[in-house]
Amino acid sequence: MQNPVTVEVTRGKLVESRHRGMGIVVDGDGKTVFAFGDVESGVFLRSACKAMQALPLVESGAADAYGFADRQLALACASHSGEDEHVALAASMLERAGRDASALECGAHWSSDQTTLIHQARTRDRPTALHNNCSGKHSGFVCTCAHVGYEVEGYVGYDHPLQADIRATMESLTGAALGHDNCGIDGCSIPSYAIPLRGLAHGFAKMVTGQGLEPIRAKASRRLMEACMAEPFYVAGTKRACTKLMQVAPGKIFAKTGAEGVFVAALPEQGLAMAVKCEDGTTRAAEAMIFALIARHFDKASETHQTLMAMANKSMRNWNGIHVGDIRVTDALFA
Amino acid sequence: MQNPVTVEVTRGKLVESRHRGMGIVVDGDGKTVFAFGDVESGVFLRSACKAMQALPLVESGAADAYGFADRQLALACASHSGEDEHVALAASMLERAGRDASALECGAHWSSDQTTLIHQARTRDRPTALHNNCSGKHSGFVCTCAHVGYEVEGYVGYDHPLQADIRATMESLTGAALGHDNCGIDGCSIPSYAIPLRGLAHGFAKMVTGQGLEPIRAKASRRLMEACMAEPFYVAGTKRACTKLMQVAPGKIFAKTGAEGVFVAALPEQGLAMAVKCEDGTTRAAEAMIFALIARHFDKASETHQTLMAMANKSMRNWNGIHVGDIRVTDALFA
Repeated sequence: MQNPVTVEVTRGKLVESRHRGMGIVVDGDGKTVFAFGDVESGVFLRSACKAMQALPLVESGAADAYGFADRQLALACASHSGEDEHVALAASMLERAGRDASALECGAHWSSDQTTLIHQARTRDRPTALHNNCSGKHSGFVCTCAHVGYEVEGYVGYDHPLQADIRATMESLTGAALGHDNCGIDGCSIPSYAIPLRGLAHGFAKMVTGQGLEPIRAKASRRLMEACMAEPFYVAGTKRACTKLMQVAPGKIFAKTGAEGVFVAALPEQGLAMAVKCEDGTTRAAEAMIFALIARHFDKASETHQTLMAMANKSMRNWNGIHVGDIRVTDALFA
Repeated sequence: MQNPVTVEVTRGKLVESRHRGMGIVVDGDGKTVFAFGDVESGVFLRSACKAMQALPLVESGAADAYGFADRQLALACASHSGEDEHVALAASMLERAGRDASALECGAHWSSDQTTLIHQARTRDRPTALHNNCSGKHSGFVCTCAHVGYEVEGYVGYDHPLQADIRATMESLTGAALGHDNCGIDGCSIPSYAIPLRGLAHGFAKMVTGQGLEPIRAKASRRLMEACMAEPFYVAGTKRACTKLMQVAPGKIFAKTGAEGVFVAALPEQGLAMAVKCEDGTTRAAEAMIFALIARHFDKASETHQTLMAMANKSMRNWNGIHVGDIRVTDALFA
């Protein structure tokens, strides 16, 4: 199946680059509301499914045992920029479980946000695992293991009981089988699975509606999504897409990005969830797609719709501030 | 016309992202040696054509008047990383023409290379126009204007005589008409034109062979390309693709990247030139394509071929150094 061109990047009067993509919107029953491109082939979920991976932290009672509030839960679902607040909060989560950064198995990297990287470069010799964009998720993993009684060391491994718990949780939510055949290793070393976008969207539709979920999972799902919507800075960071999206209409939009052009969103009031993937893995296109796809579900006259469409169709300026072109979504998103 | 998938990015056993692209290899007469995808539609040349834009600097006598050697000419053709050596050399070029950084109209930006950015952040408050990746090209422009007697101020404008000279030079080389209809504004504020990849490749084939060029242009072209091949660090920088490519087989490969997934190369010994564009504008794919396309033209048993193919098919490691997948070129580049 040929994925349509969903995003165009213009310069002057011409199109300079084109992105193809696929996407789907479903309700809590899994009924397709709208779809484009190939939504049945495997897509690596990457960080888009972090809220699913955080369910054991809540369902096991670890979050309550360590007194985690919205901020900590948001960080457990985050791909953060490594700003000082993110780093400090991850450290304090580990401390509540009597651990420290040495327990983290995610590796270390400088911030991918330029402003944050400049600050980091000026204030430290090198980044630690706490600066890794996944340090909140990993701190959540460490806390879950510590509370449940799993050995913490090796928690990133495919065969570790925590990863088996996460696998079972995600299979149940998405309806997709997860195993060695559709498994890869993520940037932070945990297993990442490739499943159809349809399953990813349906999983989030279940989480946001509670439909088809046992009460404990429905409650944990709602708690995690509400935490992210209440503390959007802790899900990403300053000027980041997830943070800005959840600030557009507080409590009405849950959103989470993943590497290689994946993005999910859920709309509690509409009982819908959606997932997109840019075929070529480019973030700018995944962002434009999810902005427009969310906008479709708000009244055209509303400020929310207009703000989202202004984010989807973005003007580009050069180093002198001159308007040189635009990133714009195509009709494929409005068929 | 449907552009083929030319580069795949894998994770585990599966393909995670796919890039489509187009490309062409031609000889000095413009005869097609190999082509894939749409090579007849307009592609913004961006920085891939900097060696063409530097021709007036040499042809006008400015380069000789200011005593420019290989290093300065390489920097005039460069998209450099803003390393200390690049910045100092651009400043010294301007000084020879009695100017300074205040004459540059390219705007300022931090380095896009992480290691260089960290160094810049630790040693200065903010970047200047000398740190702009185009500062060597712009210093060449300023020197050309100063030598010829054009007013320097406004040299980036479409109607400035320098830009008219560049336009005429590029029209003659590429055989494409350049005007307001296929013009956009580049990141550094000068005009950028969209022309078929075929014309771009043919222009560089003329430059590398001298075929069909007046003697003064043939000599200037050879001088610029030889300067780049002799001083590859000054064309890009540490660990950058253009620099590494020209170091693989010194004197045998000229290469220059451009924003939004454009790349050109020329092979003096074979009398060939080539140009590629990644449809979605992604650098990793443009690099893989040009590496493989150059490799095609070296004997399969040679170290040059093997080094280039090892650059084209690249292993990716995560923050813990674990192999997670590969960037690999497809059969579309070897049809």
